[in-house]
Amino acid sequence: MLEANQPFIIDSVEPSVDGGRYPIKREVGDTLKVRATVFRDGHNKTRVFLKFREKHNAIHWIYAPMQSVNEGLSLWAGQFKLERNTLYEYTIEAYTDIFQTWLEGTKKKVAAGEEVRSDLVEGRMMLERILAGNTPKGEKAYLEFVLSRIDQAASDQERLALYSDQELTKLMERSGPRDDLTTREPYLEVVADRVRARFAAWYEFFPRSQGSDPNRSATFRECILRLPEIKKMGFDVVYLPPIHPIGVTGRKGKNNSLQPLPEEPGCPYAIGNAAGGHMAVDPALGTMEDFIEFEKTCRDMGMEVALDFAINCSPDHPYVKEHPEWFFKRPDGSIKYAENPPKKYEDIYPLNFDAPEPHRRAIWEEMRRVLLFWIERGVRIFRVDNPHTKPVPFWHWLINSLQKDHPDVIFLAEAFTKPPMMRTLAKVGFTQSYTYFTWRNFKDEITAYMTELTQSEHSEYMRGNLFANTPDILPRILQEGGRPAFMMRYVLAATLSSVYGIYSGYELCEREAIPGKEEYLNSEKYQFKVWDWNRPGNIKAYIETVNNIRRVNAALHGYRNLRFFRSDNPNILFYGKVTPDKRNVILVVVNVDPFNAHEGAIYIPLEEIGIRQGDHFELQELIAGGKYLLQDRHFHVKLEPSQPAWIFRVDKWEQKEQDFDQFNM
Amino acid sequence: MLEANQPFIIDSVEPSVDGGRYPIKREVGDTLKVRATVFRDGHNKTRVFLKFREKHNAIHWIYAPMQSVNEGLSLWAGQFKLERNTLYEYTIEAYTDIFQTWLEGTKKKVAAGEEVRSDLVEGRMMLERILAGNTPKGEKAYLEFVLSRIDQAASDQERLALYSDQELTKLMERSGPRDDLTTREPYLEVVADRVRARFAAWYEFFPRSQGSDPNRSATFRECILRLPEIKKMGFDVVYLPPIHPIGVTGRKGKNNSLQPLPEEPGCPYAIGNAAGGHMAVDPALGTMEDFIEFEKTCRDMGMEVALDFAINCSPDHPYVKEHPEWFFKRPDGSIKYAENPPKKYEDIYPLNFDAPEPHRRAIWEEMRRVLLFWIERGVRIFRVDNPHTKPVPFWHWLINSLQKDHPDVIFLAEAFTKPPMMRTLAKVGFTQSYTYFTWRNFKDEITAYMTELTQSEHSEYMRGNLFANTPDILPRILQEGGRPAFMMRYVLAATLSSVYGIYSGYELCEREAIPGKEEYLNSEKYQFKVWDWNRPGNIKAYIETVNNIRRVNAALHGYRNLRFFRSDNPNILFYGKVTPDKRNVILVVVNVDPFNAHEGAIYIPLEEIGIRQGDHFELQELIAGGKYLLQDRHFHVKLEPSQPAWIFRVDKWEQKEQDFDQFNM
Repeated sequence: MLEANQPFIIDSVEPSVDGGRYPIKREVGDTLKVRATVFRDGHNKTRVFLKFREKHNAIHWIYAPMQSVNEGLSLWAGQFKLERNTLYEYTIEAYTDIFQTWLEGTKKKVAAGEEVRSDLVEGRMMLERILAGNTPKGEKAYLEFVLSRIDQAASDQERLALYSDQELTKLMERSGPRDDLTTREPYLEVVADRVRARFAAWYEFFPRSQGSDPNRSATFRECILRLPEIKKMGFDVVYLPPIHPIGVTGRKGKNNSLQPLPEEPGCPYAIGNAAGGHMAVDPALGTMEDFIEFEKTCRDMGMEVALDFAINCSPDHPYVKEHPEWFFKRPDGSIKYAENPPKKYEDIYPLNFDAPEPHRRAIWEEMRRVLLFWIERGVRIFRVDNPHTKPVPFWHWLINSLQKDHPDVIFLAEAFTKPPMMRTLAKVGFTQSYTYFTWRNFKDEITAYMTELTQSEHSEYMRGNLFANTPDILPRILQEGGRPAFMMRYVLAATLSSVYGIYSGYELCEREAIPGKEEYLNSEKYQFKVWDWNRPGNIKAYIETVNNIRRVNAALHGYRNLRFFRSDNPNILFYGKVTPDKRNVILVVVNVDPFNAHEGAIYIPLEEIGIRQGDHFELQELIAGGKYLLQDRHFHVKLEPSQPAWIFRVDKWEQKEQDFDQFNM
Repeated sequence: MLEANQPFIIDSVEPSVDGGRYPIKREVGDTLKVRATVFRDGHNKTRVFLKFREKHNAIHWIYAPMQSVNEGLSLWAGQFKLERNTLYEYTIEAYTDIFQTWLEGTKKKVAAGEEVRSDLVEGRMMLERILAGNTPKGEKAYLEFVLSRIDQAASDQERLALYSDQELTKLMERSGPRDDLTTREPYLEVVADRVRARFAAWYEFFPRSQGSDPNRSATFRECILRLPEIKKMGFDVVYLPPIHPIGVTGRKGKNNSLQPLPEEPGCPYAIGNAAGGHMAVDPALGTMEDFIEFEKTCRDMGMEVALDFAINCSPDHPYVKEHPEWFFKRPDGSIKYAENPPKKYEDIYPLNFDAPEPHRRAIWEEMRRVLLFWIERGVRIFRVDNPHTKPVPFWHWLINSLQKDHPDVIFLAEAFTKPPMMRTLAKVGFTQSYTYFTWRNFKDEITAYMTELTQSEHSEYMRGNLFANTPDILPRILQEGGRPAFMMRYVLAATLSSVYGIYSGYELCEREAIPGKEEYLNSEKYQFKVWDWNRPGNIKAYIETVNNIRRVNAALHGYRNLRFFRSDNPNILFYGKVTPDKRNVILVVVNVDPFNAHEGAIYIPLEEIGIRQGDHFELQELIAGGKYLLQDRHFHVKLEPSQPAWIFRVDKWEQKEQDFDQFNM
């Protein structure tokens, strides 16, 4: 029921997620722009404010005035800057400005030649009411001074001029009556993540495959030797699949074989053995100190480590002995392995998130302890394996409770599941999400999907991290399309989204698949591997170039600024990004067919990039080089598979003779 | 924060208004169809229910199962019938069906030739758990019987067949475990109004103008004499502007003159004088008994009276003396008349809905008392004057508190104000709303506006009552278009919406305006008037015909079933309505230009009206008569201003020789 003393209606607040049930997401330094419909009955003068504060560090509310932007629709707009990496709460407040309503009405009456003696008494009473209240001494003295001048004034006009004094206006805004002050509830929230949550290039590798001996695991120390190359290619995040001791019971061999050879290392997603569980490192990789050294080296080079958070336990995980009640049990008391009848996963014991209390809560707390363990060791990014197989309320609690103290921690959801679950995981807290990008290959489906991700309400809470491949997904387009496809899909990932990733081997155009499947043959998930990181046909230089383009062009740091533009050829995708000030404009043209050259007209969106009809402008191609001078929106392009994408920076050609000192002297 | 023991996500519930903040509206007899996204982690078998009850008469919840309609989107659908004129509350519940999940998994294992001894023990334990609980005796006996048969079974297949027994399935649905039962909050609400809230033709008249003496007020007794004619024209609701004693102070004369003659009756919207206020009738109209007789006569004829609820008080209203604290006061204690500087309304004292408590609450309660007074005298419909000038929370409380005991009371909001306020008044309780219909005259704007009203989310809570004219609005199209325009706008009002109205004089094509304004010259608002209800050029027979068509064609009883169809001529509007079973199909063609004939092709929407390509069908024109046999979607129409609209009923021509007994003998 609406409250009698809160007669304003404040609704249609945008942006918001499910009417404020979940926070929206932005990044530090952003200005949050808010719109809402605000009104009450009658025609009195309304004041509307955005009221905001840091939720976990709330000393006082800060107020930002909102402006009427469409009177007929009662639409108001305001904004505030997200200065810190934290969770903000905000709401909207409205009240009737009795004083200004009175002042404007009285002025109109005087202008119409009406008698206003009684009105002037009313105005005086409003000031007296403040004088009689808890107003600071300075204000009182000022009010008494104003009242004495009003009493001495010679005419109504003069009195109204005194009531219109700027200082009095401010005082009344501060201390005037707000009897009908209405506050929108529930309050809204915005997560201000650090910028790396939005802008980063991820590189995934299996640490044990970073060495030169095919018969043993590589070590963290060997991994360190790989970092300069990864840095040179331009990556920001080095993401490692699980680094913990690997189970022995039910261990899988090469190519997921159920009969492993004794020397085979097992799959790192079967976590835990006698050497420890989620808070230990696989001794084959080195010691905890080695990991810490690896993490520190990354950080010193300006990169960050992302760890895999996979809740699976192997039958040899210490939890199995320490907390058998955390697992599913058979009637005979033995613990059940994972199954999806008739499939069996005998190397995995799933935790029972539906266990009766106090066990469920104990599991939740233990998972939090695991993440805090790694946070204490410098890790600030977690890629979460299969989050959709654990309860949503668990993630809601886990992420919010961790980010309260550690707002800089980033969570990437490997939510390869149905769209509602993927979106909900983002709503309840995941910083980023994997997407269906690998299965969107053609112009129409890329356009539709990326528009949904970056332009719809989804973009308020979900940042799609576009992985071009993963250890589980070697897409058909890469298998068949070869090097041109690897280049093409790379540019798409790196420019459609501000945050994207590849799994190592991509730069080598590795594409040996299990026939008829999207899986790698001889996958690193099940065996040691040694790579020639400089093998012929690699696209490392190409990757370096594209990442450099990303770095120096601020437009590509944006996620929600993607726009698709017209191109006549159905194989040529044309899109771009522009900074809010339009000073950096990037246009991208991609031939999405890796097998054939395509050509056709593209249409430069002059209005959206701030170029007036008739202006001259230059397109500078940033991958291969080249400059094009244009005065028109039409541009003909031809893209060969060997050079499947162009990235243009647009510059106005606007220097005139008047711009030079010589001319003005 | 989401609850650990409620792991289902239940969201995107449709229909809903502002995420459930306000109820949706339907009518008695409707089936409410609900859709929602429902899921949790994992692949277990889910059960989802709609749970509903009458909110003010809640004995127990009723459960209606929901069905999965799109697994990929986790979309579920269900429905329940609104049997009574009352407020229903409902929500959605979901839980994991542990028993069926177990049964299906075990069956798959058996089919794959796996060993299931332990699984069968688990199944037995589930039954035993129920036996050990608070289950009715009959269920226990049955369970014991089933268990004994299971123990005696010869094979696993036989055991699983026993577990699949239909009666056991039902028992487990009723009494099985629901450990993760999740309930969606907040609950949703649906107002089930009586059908007249959606389907009615309104006729407005000033009672004092229903007589034959231009020098005095007509009486309720004279009004009764008018009722047979109004009934014959086919109206359902007789709406009267205020019938209360009229103020003397500041009284307005003819044509809103500030210098009235002594014998002039004043404007009935200036309510109250020495004879009484909102709970009295103007003595010039008769006694309260006369009103009651009038109301009863209407009811006996199958019509209803709608009263005007106008909160304005004249300076002579009894409230002014009895409750001076309810009004706005000047510093000298005198009461303020209404003003919007520099305009003054000296005949009106507005109530101060911002008065400090307890006065505000006293005003609210008094307004409720006024409405209850008339409800006790048989009135069930109120047209509310200017609701947007009183606080929204007041209406929210007033309407909800009255409808709790009197769910059959209908409120029409005269919300001629900005769109957000108009919509909000509908959200908080108004049964119907006036609309911008009189200002939507052309094909594109009628199409856009009526689509918004009947197809968008607005249609969930707002029923647009299309008045073709009002005492305050004589639209330019009628002033200039004359009789053709009156016919054309009449058909539009009566067929675009299921609920519509006219203000008397419309049937006479009365169109004498104050020059340059949309106001009537010599308005009945300010003077006595005598009409010749049979004057030449009237469209009474036309109105009767159209109302008859409305009555016998169920498609026209619907509000949300309006659809616009293709017509090539920009002056020819083509639309229609179909019953859910497609047994009644009405198509309407209107020439919206009252000055010229127009012709062109219209395209019969075969798919939407249930006609297969190639079928023969008949269009029967219902206003002027005429039949057309068609087999194709193309149809050429020509509409003269003198016959500006056609209303077709569509019948399939599907009788074949096989349908006759002779053929089959």
